[in-house]
Amino acid sequence: MRNIRLLIEYDGTRYDGWQRLGKSSKGDTIQSRLEGVLSRMTNEPVEIIGSGRTDKGVHAAGQVANFHTNTRLSCTDIRDQMNRYLPEDIGILDVSEAGARFHSRLNATAKTYLYRIAVGPSQAVFSRKYTWYCPEVTDVERMEQGAALLLGEHDFLGFSSVRKTNKSTVRRLDDIKIEAMDRELVLTFTGNGFLYHMVRILVGTLAQIGAGKRDPETVSQVLLSKDRELAGPMAPPQGLCLENVQYM
Amino acid sequence: MRNIRLLIEYDGTRYDGWQRLGKSSKGDTIQSRLEGVLSRMTNEPVEIIGSGRTDKGVHAAGQVANFHTNTRLSCTDIRDQMNRYLPEDIGILDVSEAGARFHSRLNATAKTYLYRIAVGPSQAVFSRKYTWYCPEVTDVERMEQGAALLLGEHDFLGFSSVRKTNKSTVRRLDDIKIEAMDRELVLTFTGNGFLYHMVRILVGTLAQIGAGKRDPETVSQVLLSKDRELAGPMAPPQGLCLENVQYM
Repeated sequence: MRNIRLLIEYDGTRYDGWQRLGKSSKGDTIQSRLEGVLSRMTNEPVEIIGSGRTDKGVHAAGQVANFHTNTRLSCTDIRDQMNRYLPEDIGILDVSEAGARFHSRLNATAKTYLYRIAVGPSQAVFSRKYTWYCPEVTDVERMEQGAALLLGEHDFLGFSSVRKTNKSTVRRLDDIKIEAMDRELVLTFTGNGFLYHMVRILVGTLAQIGAGKRDPETVSQVLLSKDRELAGPMAPPQGLCLENVQYM
Repeated sequence: MRNIRLLIEYDGTRYDGWQRLGKSSKGDTIQSRLEGVLSRMTNEPVEIIGSGRTDKGVHAAGQVANFHTNTRLSCTDIRDQMNRYLPEDIGILDVSEAGARFHSRLNATAKTYLYRIAVGPSQAVFSRKYTWYCPEVTDVERMEQGAALLLGEHDFLGFSSVRKTNKSTVRRLDDIKIEAMDRELVLTFTGNGFLYHMVRILVGTLAQIGAGKRDPETVSQVLLSKDRELAGPMAPPQGLCLENVQYM
């Protein structure tokens, strides 16, 4: 069987997240849309493996997924037919032949997420579905001080919605960039993995720091205590975008 | 009475254009939304003068308008209250005190319009409401040859939807820029005035040239003959944005 790799972008606004839900639930997910089109196209049931889930309302500019198939369609034909039959808020950027052992989740070595905070006296009209309007976030220098304390390998349990678990909640954050533009702050997070809601809780916490409501040093207390209560609120989904997934 | 100047951005997707319609018609326009909020805010009927109309579905990043009022609200208060009560697809970027004789339409000396054409194997998901997806437009050099013939003062009647008129249809096009980006061509038009549908018919014609369906030289025939039939089709509204209005 062939193993096909997809590079996907989607506007998550109207979807219940990436993951296909159980048969009894009626959610409209990205995964089920992709599987629906691929199954009709190839005349066989297709199951897609994504690099990871994205939550309801979260976007992706570079999600990666793979699936196994017997179809003889060329990669270009798969791409063009998918783009023809998918709704206009899901796009296939690239389709390629992957090695038999490629697994988009298990082989991912790092991911980059972008979070866009809109600032200024009025919400930017054209990016309103892709930003969190939070004009009180103004002090980038303080945010950078907080961000610096988050870099490296830590137990990020306190910055997540993860409940009791036997799995490790240690992750490595390689980079946090905060770019101040005219009407927007763009926060970029790169790391080897992210816990449930981790980016959005990091953003909510950094936003409080940038609004002068919390000291930068407090992030270290959250890391050490692993206490979700000590972190900031969870930022809303529409500002978040899975930018890309890295492989060896 | 004070004369107040507004700098406005709007996403035209769900509106019937800029201009307030007659009392009997039910269209939802940008002008009527602005007047509604301003009249309630100032407790007096407010009439707004825009720099010009934009069509149904066309956007603006820098529309200019003015209105006369007796209100004692500061410019900052007007801006903030308008942004609070306007829908999220209309934003007030700036409010300032204008001279008594300032008239946003009559005093405008030039305007700049942007038109975004999306290209590549799939429509860009995040800009789908602000672009015309037209992947067969590939030859920027040919488009630039056609654009060069349009510069300067001409009778643009053939590139418009204007019917018989006594008014002059001569306009001056100062600049056409065509920028090729990764998945997009951005066409920028600057001139002293634009006829009804003129930018969209120019774009439709340049797109045919860029798709190899028409020779660049043919634009001169349209200018000379003033025959609408010889020009290309009208490009759809969602790619068009009034970028800014210039005053002396």
